Amino acid sequence: MKIKPSLWLSTAIAVTILATGCAATFDGPRHTSGPLLIQAQGSFAAGGTELRNSGNYDNNKPAAAGQSFHGDHLYAFYQIPQNARPLPIVMLHGAFQSARSWESTSDGREGFQTLFLRRGFPVYLVDQPRRGRAGNSTVAVSLDSTPNDQLFFDQFRIGKWPNYFDNVQFDRKPETLDQFFRSVTPNTGPYDAGVISDAMSALLTKVGPATLFTHSQGGGPGWLTAIKNANVKAIVAFEPGSGFIFPPGELPPVVPSAAGTLSPEAVSSTDFQKLTRIPIIIYYGDNFPDQPTTERGQDNWRVRLAMARLWVDAINRHGGHARLVHLPDIGIHGNTHFPMSDLNNVEIADQVSRFLAEKRLD
Amino acid sequence: MKIKPSLWLSTAIAVTILATGCAATFDGPRHTSGPLLIQAQGSFAAGGTELRNSGNYDNNKPAAAGQSFHGDHLYAFYQIPQNARPLPIVMLHGAFQSARSWESTSDGREGFQTLFLRRGFPVYLVDQPRRGRAGNSTVAVSLDSTPNDQLFFDQFRIGKWPNYFDNVQFDRKPETLDQFFRSVTPNTGPYDAGVISDAMSALLTKVGPATLFTHSQGGGPGWLTAIKNANVKAIVAFEPGSGFIFPPGELPPVVPSAAGTLSPEAVSSTDFQKLTRIPIIIYYGDNFPDQPTTERGQDNWRVRLAMARLWVDAINRHGGHARLVHLPDIGIHGNTHFPMSDLNNVEIADQVSRFLAEKRLD
Repeated sequence: MKIKPSLWLSTAIAVTILATGCAATFDGPRHTSGPLLIQAQGSFAAGGTELRNSGNYDNNKPAAAGQSFHGDHLYAFYQIPQNARPLPIVMLHGAFQSARSWESTSDGREGFQTLFLRRGFPVYLVDQPRRGRAGNSTVAVSLDSTPNDQLFFDQFRIGKWPNYFDNVQFDRKPETLDQFFRSVTPNTGPYDAGVISDAMSALLTKVGPATLFTHSQGGGPGWLTAIKNANVKAIVAFEPGSGFIFPPGELPPVVPSAAGTLSPEAVSSTDFQKLTRIPIIIYYGDNFPDQPTTERGQDNWRVRLAMARLWVDAINRHGGHARLVHLPDIGIHGNTHFPMSDLNNVEIADQVSRFLAEKRLD
Repeated sequence: MKIKPSLWLSTAIAVTILATGCAATFDGPRHTSGPLLIQAQGSFAAGGTELRNSGNYDNNKPAAAGQSFHGDHLYAFYQIPQNARPLPIVMLHGAFQSARSWESTSDGREGFQTLFLRRGFPVYLVDQPRRGRAGNSTVAVSLDSTPNDQLFFDQFRIGKWPNYFDNVQFDRKPETLDQFFRSVTPNTGPYDAGVISDAMSALLTKVGPATLFTHSQGGGPGWLTAIKNANVKAIVAFEPGSGFIFPPGELPPVVPSAAGTLSPEAVSSTDFQKLTRIPIIIYYGDNFPDQPTTERGQDNWRVRLAMARLWVDAINRHGGHARLVHLPDIGIHGNTHFPMSDLNNVEIADQVSRFLAEKRLD
């Protein structure tokens, strides 16, 4: 599609005018179509370690001796829009995913990367250590082709395979599901929340003060990153699934579900207290059962939502500022485990924008 | 950095004016700084296969039975600039690399992704099947942490470890080398030029007519992609390292080097002939030895350059349009195995732009 100069110039002028106003309340997206104005973009590695083998390197007969290996870093791709808002957003994906989670949706619409660029935020997308383009792991692993598509369909609450939930915010074209399945990418080393949050902390040191978005398994490393680095100024967590950390003596009981048990994790009081200093909001989607059920895919989330409520209570009991939004409670229905790429992802982005405005994070 | 509206609007106007002219000769980059005007961006998977396990899927006791696995696709990230030129550029990385190869340079400057966006081309960056964000492989593999940094330093002709070549176009800050080493990412399945070129062909069907840039190991799959899909309208190959294909009866002898032997590969006459229909240009950098040497890192490239010359001769003998540019021969010195991210990468991009203009690919 080509847009005539006169049209896109007036769009550009409109963007500029909007950008000069700085309201404390959410004033709607700056421009929802037309060209993105990108001041700078690029990628780099952050954090990680270096393994060094003893001995002397023989240039002409290379072996392990004297050689090094760089691994356990993360990879970040950033885009800074023209007239950027001061606080960037760093987005961390969940299990079996990469930064791909925040790019185009499976049905080809704009994901949170581009939606929040349009709203004026610098956006940093992460491939966590041992995933995607940050594949070099200091710990070995074997990969096989374990078939998990149907498990993912259930567990990510698209429906109960092979049926979609009636109200699901997921496009039903077969090619959309194909794209969704192909967004999956494996761990290239053991999952390690400590390694991930170390690299994330190195990233935050590079980026400076920022808001952190996390998804699913990224929730746990997200809390740890905020503990390790004061540059995390707020967290927006989409469907955190594990890594709920509590101070000593306050761990809730282990919870059984049809998908296995969910255990809280212990952290020092000092570290826990650090999470009370920043605003935190947690979003969960739809089709959670109210009562225990044998439906594995759904029951898995019943207990995670329950644990998240206890976690928010604990944060606030200690003086913190956490909020949990179960989207159906505010009239938003049908969201899967990926609210940021569901059919109503602009509505979800609007919710997030309101939170950022309210907390003056924009 | 903030730019005042008046300044960036005049930049935008200047860009528009340049974009309306469509010269057949290279007229210099459109704008080398200031904001990028991106009409659309996003990502998707292309190609790949699906494994299906027999049996019935039990939603509440998931096992392999009845489940599927999607793998062997590629991942592509695209950006379409405002007032785009008609032929996009698709960029395919080499061994141990991902689309990262074309993004920021290791010292943080703009790589070919952004340089060619600035020159008005839609740009598609690929993570090939079984690499990076396209990690799902239908064939199992074991990953370890084999230390290869020093081998890469030599083999990618940065120097002879630990010394840089005197004239090398590679920034010598330690953090640059650290970033370079961290651009390495492993195969998550066996390397397979057939699998890669199948997925690339699926991508080209989606993209339409395009120019293909390849790097190093990507050279071989690049030729195969052009054989499989007539949408490849030209190839710009940076330091192709293997996969030189010849028609029956014309295979040159296997060549020994200090880094092992290099073998030509056979392809049918019909397939070979398809490569004679498109313009092809191949670039090699500096610090190649003229004569056989025991220096492994350099000798490795002596034979690849020699084989590439024979390959270009074969293409042209059959009526094709291939050219090999050994950069020192045209007065450009010090390039490593990564000319697209070397210190002089804008000069290299200018060379490529001249080729694209000459062949009316812009």
